[in-house]
Amino acid sequence: MDERIFVVGSGAIGGLYGGKLAAIGLDVSFLCRSDYEVVKSEGLFIKSVWGDFRATPARVVKNAEELNFYPDYILVCLKVLPQIDVPSIIRPAVGDNTAICLIQNGIDIEPPVQKAFPSNEIISGLAFVCCHRTAPGQIEHLDYGRLVLGNYPKGTSKTTEKLADIFRHAGIPCTTTDDVVGARWQKLVWNAPFNPISVLAGGVTTDEMLSDTGMKSLIRAIMDEVCRLAEKDGHPLPSSVIDENISFTETMTPYKTSMLLDFESKRPMEVEAILGNAVRKGKELGVAIPHIETLYRLLKMVDMKNRENGR
Amino acid sequence: MDERIFVVGSGAIGGLYGGKLAAIGLDVSFLCRSDYEVVKSEGLFIKSVWGDFRATPARVVKNAEELNFYPDYILVCLKVLPQIDVPSIIRPAVGDNTAICLIQNGIDIEPPVQKAFPSNEIISGLAFVCCHRTAPGQIEHLDYGRLVLGNYPKGTSKTTEKLADIFRHAGIPCTTTDDVVGARWQKLVWNAPFNPISVLAGGVTTDEMLSDTGMKSLIRAIMDEVCRLAEKDGHPLPSSVIDENISFTETMTPYKTSMLLDFESKRPMEVEAILGNAVRKGKELGVAIPHIETLYRLLKMVDMKNRENGR
Repeated sequence: MDERIFVVGSGAIGGLYGGKLAAIGLDVSFLCRSDYEVVKSEGLFIKSVWGDFRATPARVVKNAEELNFYPDYILVCLKVLPQIDVPSIIRPAVGDNTAICLIQNGIDIEPPVQKAFPSNEIISGLAFVCCHRTAPGQIEHLDYGRLVLGNYPKGTSKTTEKLADIFRHAGIPCTTTDDVVGARWQKLVWNAPFNPISVLAGGVTTDEMLSDTGMKSLIRAIMDEVCRLAEKDGHPLPSSVIDENISFTETMTPYKTSMLLDFESKRPMEVEAILGNAVRKGKELGVAIPHIETLYRLLKMVDMKNRENGR
Repeated sequence: MDERIFVVGSGAIGGLYGGKLAAIGLDVSFLCRSDYEVVKSEGLFIKSVWGDFRATPARVVKNAEELNFYPDYILVCLKVLPQIDVPSIIRPAVGDNTAICLIQNGIDIEPPVQKAFPSNEIISGLAFVCCHRTAPGQIEHLDYGRLVLGNYPKGTSKTTEKLADIFRHAGIPCTTTDDVVGARWQKLVWNAPFNPISVLAGGVTTDEMLSDTGMKSLIRAIMDEVCRLAEKDGHPLPSSVIDENISFTETMTPYKTSMLLDFESKRPMEVEAILGNAVRKGKELGVAIPHIETLYRLLKMVDMKNRENGR
C-alpha cells in the first residue's frame, strides 16, 4: 500500500481515522491549522476503545501548497460550515488523479466540491463514531467507529474499494455502498432530531430526550420527515428505520451529541449541513417538513447568539 | 361604586390593575404570598406610563379564609401553571354572588374554574399590557394596558359590564366582548410564536426575531396554525390578523417577552397555558399544528431543566 493520503483536519474525525492509517506506517500527511505546532512536534495521541495509540504523520503542513505533490486521496475531515470553503483549502493539492473523500456530516454537502473539481472522483464518507478532540493533537474515541464509503452521486469505483481496503487494513470497519446519498439520508434520521434537540431543549442527553413521551413522539415525527424527504429524493429508507434508531438510542450509553459539545464550547454548530440543507431539499422536492423547519430557524439563531457571546 | 373586589396575586397584573382600583379609593383586598409583608406594611408602588402611583389595599391577606366576607368580584391575577390550583386558592372567598374574573394568559384556561364553581359567573379577561414586577410590591408598567372582558364561554352579563365600568372609572381602558374565547385565540396569535421563540432561540428580543427573514416566516407559520385552530374551534379570526401582528410588533420598542424574563430568572414559564393547551386543542379538533407542537416539546423540557437549575 504505497498510496499517499492527505488528511485535511486534525479534529476528532481526522485525528482518529488519519491517525489510525499513519499508525500502521502508511504515507499520511496532515493539514492542521490551530493544532499545527503540537501535531508537528508531538504527533497525535488517540485514547481509543480500539486500544490507545500514537501516530506520527509523514508530514504536517499548514496549507495545501506546502505539500508539493498530489496525493492519491484527500480525506476532508472538517466540519461543514458556511465559513469553511473546502475547494479553496484543498485546491493546491488536487491533481488529476486525486480522489477527494469527504468524511463529514450532513446532507447534500458534496455539490460544491463536485462543482469545483468536476473531473475528480468524489467519494462521500460517513463515520458512525462517537469521538471528540480533547486537546490539540489529542482525540478521545469512546464508541463505534464504522465507516461507509461510496462514490458521489452513486456507485462504487475501484478507487473507492481500494480506499475501503486501506481503512480495513488499518483495523477500521469499513463498507462501501452504491447509494451513498441514501446512506446520508439514513444517517440524518438520527442526526436531524437528536443533535438539534440536545441543544434546543436546554442541554440534554439522549436518555433525557427519550424519557419524555411527548419528546419521543416529536423525535419520531422528525425522523418521519427525513424518511419522506429521502423517498421523494429517490432513496427510500427501510420502513423499520425509525423504530431501529429509537431502540438503538435507548440502549446507548447516555450521550451528549457533538452539536451540544460544540454549543457548550461556543464553537459553531453544523446547522446548515444537518438542517439547512434538509429544509432547502424539502423546498426543492415539495415536501413539507415543518418540525425540521422549526428546529432549523431556532438553531440558526441560537448558533448566531452563541458565537457572538463566544470568541 | 361600593363593590368589594378581591385581587388574587400581587405580581405585575394584580399589582397594576388591582392597585389602580385601590388608588381611587375602591374597596380592594389583596391576597399575597411571598410579597405579603411588604404589601401589608408599605402598600404597592407602581411606576407607570399612566403616571406613577401608590396604592394602599383595604386589606391584605395570606389566605382567602382570612377575608371573612364574600367579595363581589375576585380578580385572579396568577400565572397559569400546573402547580397553581386556582379553585382551592379562591374557594373560601367564593360566595353565591361572587363573580370570578380570570385575568390570565393562555387558551382554554377557564374549564377547571368553571367546573369547580358551576353556578358562579366566570369572566375571562385579557390584559394587553407590558409590565413586570421589579421587587415585592413594586411594579413597572412600560406600555399599553387595555383590558378585554367577556363571560365564559360567551356573552356579556350586567356583572361583566359593571366590572368594565369600574376599570374605566379607574382610568383603565377596558372593553367587553361577547366572544372572549375568540379574543383569547386572537391574543395567542402573538403569544404562541413570540414568547416561546424568545427563549428557544437563545434569549432574543422581538426585533431580533423579526430581523431574520427565515425566522419571520416561521413566526407567520405559527400564527397561521393558531388561526386554523381558532377557525376549527368556531372562532374564525380576521384574515388580516397575521399581517397586523407582524407589523405591530415591528413598530414596538424591542421587547423581552415575559416568558424570557421568567426563564432568565429561573421562574416557571406558562408552557402549558400558552402551548400545551393549544396542542391538546389541536388533537381534539383534528388540526395539525406541527410548528407549535415542536415549540411545546422543546420548551417543556427547557422549563424543566431551568427549574432544576434554579431554586
